[in-house]
Amino acid sequence: MHELIERARPVRLVIFDVDGVLTDGRLSYSSHPDAPEKEQSKVFHSRDGLGMKLLMQAGLEIGIITARSSLAVARRMADLGVPHVHQGQQDKLATYQNMIEHLALSHEQVAYMGDDIIDLPVLRRVGFAATVADASEFMQSHCHFVSKHHSGQGAARELCEFILNAQGRWDETLAYFLR
Amino acid sequence: MHELIERARPVRLVIFDVDGVLTDGRLSYSSHPDAPEKEQSKVFHSRDGLGMKLLMQAGLEIGIITARSSLAVARRMADLGVPHVHQGQQDKLATYQNMIEHLALSHEQVAYMGDDIIDLPVLRRVGFAATVADASEFMQSHCHFVSKHHSGQGAARELCEFILNAQGRWDETLAYFLR
Amino acid sequence: MHELIERARPVRLVIFDVDGVLTDGRLSYSSHPDAPEKEQSKVFHSRDGLGMKLLMQAGLEIGIITARSSLAVARRMADLGVPHVHQGQQDKLATYQNMIEHLALSHEQVAYMGDDIIDLPVLRRVGFAATVADASEFMQSHCHFVSKHHSGQGAARELCEFILNAQGRWDETLAYFLR
Amino acid sequence: MHELIERARPVRLVIFDVDGVLTDGRLSYSSHPDAPEKEQSKVFHSRDGLGMKLLMQAGLEIGIITARSSLAVARRMADLGVPHVHQGQQDKLATYQNMIEHLALSHEQVAYMGDDIIDLPVLRRVGFAATVADASEFMQSHCHFVSKHHSGQGAARELCEFILNAQGRWDETLAYFLR
Repeated sequence: MHELIERARPVRLVIFDVDGVLTDGRLSYSSHPDAPEKEQSKVFHSRDGLGMKLLMQAGLEIGIITARSSLAVARRMADLGVPHVHQGQQDKLATYQNMIEHLALSHEQVAYMGDDIIDLPVLRRVGFAATVADASEFMQSHCHFVSKHHSGQGAARELCEFILNAQGRWDETLAYFLR
Repeated sequence: MHELIERARPVRLVIFDVDGVLTDGRLSYSSHPDAPEKEQSKVFHSRDGLGMKLLMQAGLEIGIITARSSLAVARRMADLGVPHVHQGQQDKLATYQNMIEHLALSHEQVAYMGDDIIDLPVLRRVGFAATVADASEFMQSHCHFVSKHHSGQGAARELCEFILNAQGRWDETLAYFLR
Repeated sequence: MHELIERARPVRLVIFDVDGVLTDGRLSYSSHPDAPEKEQSKVFHSRDGLGMKLLMQAGLEIGIITARSSLAVARRMADLGVPHVHQGQQDKLATYQNMIEHLALSHEQVAYMGDDIIDLPVLRRVGFAATVADASEFMQSHCHFVSKHHSGQGAARELCEFILNAQGRWDETLAYFLR
Repeated sequence: MHELIERARPVRLVIFDVDGVLTDGRLSYSSHPDAPEKEQSKVFHSRDGLGMKLLMQAGLEIGIITARSSLAVARRMADLGVPHVHQGQQDKLATYQNMIEHLALSHEQVAYMGDDIIDLPVLRRVGFAATVADASEFMQSHCHFVSKHHSGQGAARELCEFILNAQGRWDETLAYFLR
């Protein structure tokens, strides 16, 4: 636990995978001829959204890297004001390397939350590797942090609170709401 | 338990948060270009709806306060005949204070059910503070009542029945259906 | 158990409530201006559907009585070929009495599956009163049969198989598929 | 376990049922007058999709046989590049026999995953019969393999990994992602 807190302290950028992390991994396809050919909707969680907003208000950078691409994700990220949105990235490692170069960050300053083996190349490099309660044992064995909540049901929120806590910023966040 | 019943007795107004209380907190975003930019649908529970109707039939006031705003919520509340619908309220405390002033009620006469830290300013003031089974331990520690049911799956119904029971009105409600 | 089998033997008509029995009770409201004002979709289960078909193939009558009304329910029932579809029935008892009069059946020849107190007037009259695993303890105490499966996830199928079994028809049903 | 691995070794074709296997069995019907009369959407899982892709990359054949028919299924299968898509098949056994004849395979070279009794005629013939955690005990007693994951939530992925493991191909798959 102490080591985990040490890993969370230097984090300046938190990156989330989308399907299976910010959502529960379900992909909804429509039978309506006028609907987009690929998935029609994505389901996010209100508590995860508030966690991401609190991270940004505390001055951290937030982004997503996802292999798929949909208008639903673009709309959710616009709602939350997430600045670094990378959809349709088959090579997540290359995208990650561009991101940290652009933001002038080292691996130790990045947390990444992913749920499946295509996330492994990034998870093996970041200082804080996180996954979700419903990821496989194999995935969990490759990560520093495993959420108690399932994907799409508070896993991302848990990571946000853990980092704010480790950086000593959670109490000031709560103070505002306990006014 | 006895103290909780005492708290429920004077309640004349029951206010619900929407996302994470009347729904399970999931926010559905569409990828359809013609769909509204924000969430396209909200999922409520039939048993919660009946509980809210029974509260109103027993003469209590019911309302909602939510930070978000959607046509889905307006439609659900119209279906149920809920009179006090306040959407798009970033400052829930101010909205709450206007409501009780308008209805000439004191804090002791209000029950509020919320699930996240933005509900704390109101929860800390009302006479009967309620939250859901899936809220964080921190939230639960700030509330008098924690439902056994999860959000969007009967948590609101449980609160409605508890209040009707505490006020000695549940038996007459049942009598009608046991005819 | 023996008494329950005796109750299932004379059943010639099986009536299902919809919300909270054939569905899990969730009501989906759309935010799309062009969508119907009330719920836009209903979610049924494939295994429940097959159970209902097998009941009909065995010669039993099937119907639904629901207080709400939607095109989604009409479409599902048409798909399954269910003949007795009664939507928008605020007074379920009156509808039930018309049904058994029309079919010339006695209370003992009817099974009804419901989940909430508005179903009590019918449940208290039929020979075989059934409810779902997620109904309240109060509801379960008023029924002869409580499914192990939750509403919308196999509760109806369980009732169908129980009745076919009690009437000695399940083995011939299986024989076809074990060919 | 050893026998199960022996059964998985010769498998060259893996066939999935759709409803209750690749989905959780829920059938969504719309109330929108302009929507298709039958189900409007199907919900698949991202981790199942990756498992199916990995099977195909390892050189195995993949297909589906389903009694229903929808554009949603056609779209999902096109996304994944699944070549053998058989919808609207009331007689699954005949379709299965055509498939293995066309691909010149024996029963021992086929794995089939199904969840309900209409899958029994095929399940009783293939060399590797698989079902899901939420199938009935009766169904499970007729299958060699029962997934730990529920339908629509990783059951198909589990089968894919089991077969790749049994055939000694999983380590090379992982090696790519552990680069």
